[in-house]
Amino acid sequence: MIYFDNSATTMPDGSVMETFLKAGTRFFANPSSLHTPGMEAERLIEKARAQIAGLIGAAPDEIIFTSGGTESNNLAVKGTAAFYKGRGRHIITTAFEHPSVYEAFLALEKDGFSVTFVRPDENGIVRVKDIEKAITDETIFVSVMHVNNETGAVQPVEEIGQMLQQYPGVSFHVDGVQGFGKVPLHLNKACVDLLSVSGHKFHGLNGTGFLYKRSGVNVLPLFSGGGQENGLRSGTENAAGIASLARAVRLLHNENPEKLRKITGTIREQLNTRNWAVVHTPIQAAPHILNFSVPGVKGEVLVHALEKEGIVVSTTSACSSKQNKPSRTLEAMNVSGEQAASAIRVSISRYNTMEEANQFIAALDRVVPVLAKKRNERK
Amino acid sequence: MIYFDNSATTMPDGSVMETFLKAGTRFFANPSSLHTPGMEAERLIEKARAQIAGLIGAAPDEIIFTSGGTESNNLAVKGTAAFYKGRGRHIITTAFEHPSVYEAFLALEKDGFSVTFVRPDENGIVRVKDIEKAITDETIFVSVMHVNNETGAVQPVEEIGQMLQQYPGVSFHVDGVQGFGKVPLHLNKACVDLLSVSGHKFHGLNGTGFLYKRSGVNVLPLFSGGGQENGLRSGTENAAGIASLARAVRLLHNENPEKLRKITGTIREQLNTRNWAVVHTPIQAAPHILNFSVPGVKGEVLVHALEKEGIVVSTTSACSSKQNKPSRTLEAMNVSGEQAASAIRVSISRYNTMEEANQFIAALDRVVPVLAKKRNERK
Repeated sequence: MIYFDNSATTMPDGSVMETFLKAGTRFFANPSSLHTPGMEAERLIEKARAQIAGLIGAAPDEIIFTSGGTESNNLAVKGTAAFYKGRGRHIITTAFEHPSVYEAFLALEKDGFSVTFVRPDENGIVRVKDIEKAITDETIFVSVMHVNNETGAVQPVEEIGQMLQQYPGVSFHVDGVQGFGKVPLHLNKACVDLLSVSGHKFHGLNGTGFLYKRSGVNVLPLFSGGGQENGLRSGTENAAGIASLARAVRLLHNENPEKLRKITGTIREQLNTRNWAVVHTPIQAAPHILNFSVPGVKGEVLVHALEKEGIVVSTTSACSSKQNKPSRTLEAMNVSGEQAASAIRVSISRYNTMEEANQFIAALDRVVPVLAKKRNERK
Repeated sequence: MIYFDNSATTMPDGSVMETFLKAGTRFFANPSSLHTPGMEAERLIEKARAQIAGLIGAAPDEIIFTSGGTESNNLAVKGTAAFYKGRGRHIITTAFEHPSVYEAFLALEKDGFSVTFVRPDENGIVRVKDIEKAITDETIFVSVMHVNNETGAVQPVEEIGQMLQQYPGVSFHVDGVQGFGKVPLHLNKACVDLLSVSGHKFHGLNGTGFLYKRSGVNVLPLFSGGGQENGLRSGTENAAGIASLARAVRLLHNENPEKLRKITGTIREQLNTRNWAVVHTPIQAAPHILNFSVPGVKGEVLVHALEKEGIVVSTTSACSSKQNKPSRTLEAMNVSGEQAASAIRVSISRYNTMEEANQFIAALDRVVPVLAKKRNERK
C-alpha cells in the first residue's frame, strides 16, 4: 500500500510507540502524587516539556500538553476569547481554517462575539492588509493557520504577527498542525502568542499534542479540575503520551522537509504535462501537500479507483470528508464547484519515496482515461 | 514495591497495552477518512463502542469517547449547563466532589449560575432529602459522585436518581470514575442521565475514557471542529486508545470486586485493634478504598515512612495532593483539622493480595511507634 494521506494522520513511528510502551509501563504512577513513583512520572513530563520547548525556541512553562490539535485550537480560540472578552468582542480569522478553529469561531459568534472571516486570494493565501483592514477597536484576537490542510498553502503568519505588534491588545494564534516541522516558523520573529500542534500529524500518537502559549498571554481553561498544566489543562497527565510526543518532535526536528518537496515537485511536474489535471496547490506551499482536480471525475470516485491500485489518498480533509460538503478552502479560492468536487489531496511524509510518486503518476495514467471514458458514455 | 495508590492511577494491564500497540500500528488511519484503512479504523471504534455499551446496559450512540475522567466531567457539567441554561440557572452538587466536578461548578458560578453545594452526613454520605430540599424551579442539573475518591463512601445515587424523576427538567450526572466496575450501578434503575468513566482507574491507559449520555439528554460540546462523536467531541479519534479502553472495561467486568473487600476488610479489622488509628471510610463504602488517620502523625510523613518500607500510599487524592490544602471530603464530614492532616488513603486493585495487606499492617506497626516517639520528643 502506498499511503499518501499523511495530512489526515500518519503511521506512528516504531520508536514513538516503543517510548509510549516503556514509559506507560515503568512510569505509570500519577504525576501529581507525592511519592517517588509519582515524582518520577512528573520528571519524565518535565524532561519532555523542556525538550520540546528547547526545539521550538520556547520556555518550558510556555508548553501546555493537550489531547491533540482540536483541543489545542479550542483552548486557544475559546480560552483567549473568554479571558479577554472584557476588552472587546471582535475576533478575526480566515474563511479557510480547519474546522476546529472555524467552528470554534462560529460557537463564539453564537455566544455574542462578532467575527470577521477574511477571504484569501486566488492562491488560497490571505493578504496581510486584509487582516489589518478587519481590525477594529473591539478586536482582541486573530487566528490564522500556518499551512492550509487541504492545499498546503503557506500563510504569511510572520508578516501578520509583525503587523499585529501595532495592536498590542490583540492576541495572535497560529494553527500549526499542518505546518509544524514542515515549514520553518520562528515564534519570536512571527510574534506568535499561541501555536497549536498535534502529535499524530508527524508520526506521533493520536491523543497527544500541545499548545504553545507565550508567557504573559492568558487563556481560560476548558477543563476545570486538579489544576495540572499550571491550571490550564486539568486531568491526570498522560505521561507516556507526553514522552512519546517529545520523541516524535525530536524525530521531526532531524528531518529535512525539503526532501518531501522533491517528491511532491515531481508529481506536480508530471501533472502539469497532463491536460486532464488542474493543480490547486500554489507554489508558496508546504512541501508535503499537493491538491489537484481531474475535472469531470468526482474526487470520491478517483479515491476509490486509486485504492484499487493500492494507493491511499483523500478528497479533502478527513475531518470534513464525511459531510460531503464542498471544500471551504477551494470555495474561498473561487475554484469552481465542479473542480472542487473533483479535487483530491496527496499528502506525504518522510516514509514516502520518489518510487511511490512515479507509481502514483503511472496509476493515474491508467485510471483517469477509464474514468473519463465512463463519464463520457454516461453523457 | 507494594502499590496501594490505585485510586490515583493503576498500572496499565499488559493486554491493554498490547491492544493499544496492535491497534495503533495496524489501524492507524484516520477513522473519518473515506478509504478502506479509514473505514477499518472506524469499525474498530464502533466495535469498542458496542462492547462497552453492551457491558453497561446502554445503546452504542450513548457512549462519547473522551480523553478521560476530567474531560467527561467537564463535558457533563459545563455542557449540560450550557445547553439548558435557558430553562434555569440553578445547579446542585455536593461539597465533596472531585475537583473536576467541583471546580467546574465554581467556573459556572463565576459565569452567572447559582450553585448549591450539599454537605454530607458524618459518614461522608449525602442525604437524598438534602438534595431534594435544594431543588428550586430554576434547577436544571444535579451532579453526585458514585464513590468518593478519598474515603470510598458510596453515595445513594440510585435513590437520588429515582427522586429526581419527579423533576423532569433536571438532568442527573454521576461521576462514576471511582465507582465504575467496583460498585454495581444500574443506569436505568438509578435514572442516570450522564456517567463519567476514566480508563486509567482500572488498568486502562491515561488519556482514555468516556461519557455515557442518555439518548434525549443534550450537552453543548467543549470542542468544536470536525464533528466526531456525533458532534459532541471533535478531534481525530484515538482509535487505538478506544480499543484499549474496551479491553480494560472487559477485564474489569470479569473481575469480582468483593475480592477487594476481603483485603481492605482485613486492613480495617487490624486498624480497629490499634489504638493509634482512626478509620474514616464508612461501612457503606466501595471495596477498594480505605482512608484512616494516625492522629499526630502528618499524612505526608507517614506516606514517606511507608515508602521506605516499599509501600506506596497517598495522603488525599493525587489531584489535590500538591495543593497542600485540607481534604474537602474530610472537612465536609466534620473530621477535625488534625485528623484530616494525618489522613492517608489505601486504594487497591485486582493485582493486590492479602499478603500485601499483612505486610502493610506489619509495616505500620513498625513505623507508627517510631514516628509517634519522634513527635513526642519534639513536644
